[in-house]
Amino acid sequence: MTATAFERSVSALTEGQTLRVWSVIVTIFGDLAQAPGQTLSGRALARLCAPMGLRDEAQRVALHRLRKEGWIESRRDGRQSHYGLTDWGRAQARAASPRIYGPAPAGPLYLWVTETAAEPRADVVAIAPNLALSTAIDGPPGSMVQQVAPEALPGWMRARVADPALVAEAARLTAALERLRTELPKITDPAQQAVLRVLMVHGWRRIALKLPLLPDAAFPDGWQGAAARAHLGALLQALPRPAPAALEPA
Amino acid sequence: MTATAFERSVSALTEGQTLRVWSVIVTIFGDLAQAPGQTLSGRALARLCAPMGLRDEAQRVALHRLRKEGWIESRRDGRQSHYGLTDWGRAQARAASPRIYGPAPAGPLYLWVTETAAEPRADVVAIAPNLALSTAIDGPPGSMVQQVAPEALPGWMRARVADPALVAEAARLTAALERLRTELPKITDPAQQAVLRVLMVHGWRRIALKLPLLPDAAFPDGWQGAAARAHLGALLQALPRPAPAALEPA
Repeated sequence: MTATAFERSVSALTEGQTLRVWSVIVTIFGDLAQAPGQTLSGRALARLCAPMGLRDEAQRVALHRLRKEGWIESRRDGRQSHYGLTDWGRAQARAASPRIYGPAPAGPLYLWVTETAAEPRADVVAIAPNLALSTAIDGPPGSMVQQVAPEALPGWMRARVADPALVAEAARLTAALERLRTELPKITDPAQQAVLRVLMVHGWRRIALKLPLLPDAAFPDGWQGAAARAHLGALLQALPRPAPAALEPA
Repeated sequence: MTATAFERSVSALTEGQTLRVWSVIVTIFGDLAQAPGQTLSGRALARLCAPMGLRDEAQRVALHRLRKEGWIESRRDGRQSHYGLTDWGRAQARAASPRIYGPAPAGPLYLWVTETAAEPRADVVAIAPNLALSTAIDGPPGSMVQQVAPEALPGWMRARVADPALVAEAARLTAALERLRTELPKITDPAQQAVLRVLMVHGWRRIALKLPLLPDAAFPDGWQGAAARAHLGALLQALPRPAPAALEPA
């Protein structure tokens, strides 16, 4: 049996990784039902998760855990459950959105020469005991801060900005998104489109939330984050976010 | 008995340190008999060394060692020995002269951010595993070189340019040279003047040959090297170098 364009796309976006169900559900709510009052039924969630190979039982366990941890709350309506982000869960999703959907941080970039190791932050990458890169100009007291061109950073320094696993994951996602740009025109079912949208966002979210907030040019050789962002942007344009109601089974 | 101006000056220049005779003799030849063919008799050397508290026996041992190590050669002339630098010794003295008599290195100053620790050189000071300061723009392969204003260097960085003992020694010498500027007008004997000249040069030579070749502003808080150089320059102007023949006893 020949795989369909949809199946090929799901494979491309999931191969080589184990999807964590609770993390996929966080992506779903963050992407499709982030606004106050927006909910998704258990059946709508199942419609998104099942084609990703996530079983009903795993979905239930994940929903239970997410409720227990305060991410989501549920409401029963007859035989159906409806789920939505809690205020806290919504705040988390809102805080993550700029990193997932936003552009890469632009310059200027600063080299901090510090007396002792700088405390790591999303926008501060320690690259040696006395060195950090940051888009922030205000280093710790006693530090010497120098503006640097990301293009002028030597390879060994950029190599310490992101680990090889993350660089490899971004390359894999970029290849998958390139494939999607070919397959997507063939996929017209809105439910399938929603599944692919979630998988694309999820794939980038896994990477984006681990990235230091530095310009792409400060990243290691082989870094394809800029290409991944460009593909993702174009694909999300082509797959606009469906309203939660449109995800409910007819 | 009241100390004379000469005695006070010798004390100021030697207190708190143990003069190493062979090193003083190297200073003497480097300062007073560096040119090819210039020699000093054993009696002239004794005339310079005795007022510093260096005994005849210690002088003989030092001359023996310096001959053995190839710094000086001797020639007997009747009952008197005459000593002069070997070609090798002269090359050493000539190489050291700019550091002893010359001005402090001027900027520009560069911060080298290196992948691994930079190999120390006279003009390269390693201040952290990945950091060095240098007046040379050409760091090792893969390094990032940034021009920095010495005045902008944080204290902890300058503190690594010279150790506290050297800073203290420079402060002590500076105080002694200040004292000399008061005492010197009272000292008119050419032999005494020559002794003081040697002691001043020797005091600075001990420091200058240990200093990294960086601008004074890159040195630790309390660094008085610039003052020491200024005093030494003024005093050497007032005590011109005597010809070797003038040092021979009449």
